[in-house]
Amino acid sequence: MSFELHQKLDADCEKLCDFDLCTVLLMRDDRFPWVILVPRIEGLRDYHDLPRDSASTLFDEIARVSTALVDTFGAEKINVAALGNQVPQLHVHVIGRFTDDAAWPGPVWNAGIAENVDSSVVEKRAVLLRGALTP
Amino acid sequence: MSFELHQKLDADCEKLCDFDLCTVLLMRDDRFPWVILVPRIEGLRDYHDLPRDSASTLFDEIARVSTALVDTFGAEKINVAALGNQVPQLHVHVIGRFTDDAAWPGPVWNAGIAENVDSSVVEKRAVLLRGALTP
Repeated sequence: MSFELHQKLDADCEKLCDFDLCTVLLMRDDRFPWVILVPRIEGLRDYHDLPRDSASTLFDEIARVSTALVDTFGAEKINVAALGNQVPQLHVHVIGRFTDDAAWPGPVWNAGIAENVDSSVVEKRAVLLRGALTP
Repeated sequence: MSFELHQKLDADCEKLCDFDLCTVLLMRDDRFPWVILVPRIEGLRDYHDLPRDSASTLFDEIARVSTALVDTFGAEKINVAALGNQVPQLHVHVIGRFTDDAAWPGPVWNAGIAENVDSSVVEKRAVLLRGALTP
């Protein structure tokens, strides 16, 4: 079965690029530089559903995004999480955190959803990240 | 430098066992079967600090715990996360979730901290998980 991005991820995010394994998305949230990696393999749900021979590639792709968040935005901490209680398609959050951000030191999910998002902030981040993540 | 478990992880958790890479802990929280994996390598902070040649091992150990949480407690979803905003030593949460648990469908961190923990629940889980995770 061919891979199709879950409609909620498609609706909430802007696509940045495709890596070898994952599609790379940016959440439309002006509070945090918040990337989501989605392995393009149909039917994955939990993290351990990933085929074992893709584990190193996913690690590399998480590391690549993490490094870009540090280098591009000066992120002080990176949060990595595969939760998926609301969107069943396996996706990995890779979020740049700052000690003065809207949720610190809690996880971003403690801070509610983004309201009145400044789309220019998101768009600027998307441009910078595309530059950092694509050759 | 030799590895030493962070004092907050030591205080908040019960040790279950040692895997090849990680020390396996159980959070003293009666609301969720909540395991924490701590790679025994000194100085790691973010997920991408893990040496690349340990990535597959960490994946395997996450998968082993996830499978145990499903098989032992019937967990309906597994949440995996490396956050570390409050405890800087790299540690990976592997949490069994249920559609009727105290935080569903939010992440467990939305539900505050555990209060008046029933230690018999935690102890029973520890016994079952040790049985499932050790040969």
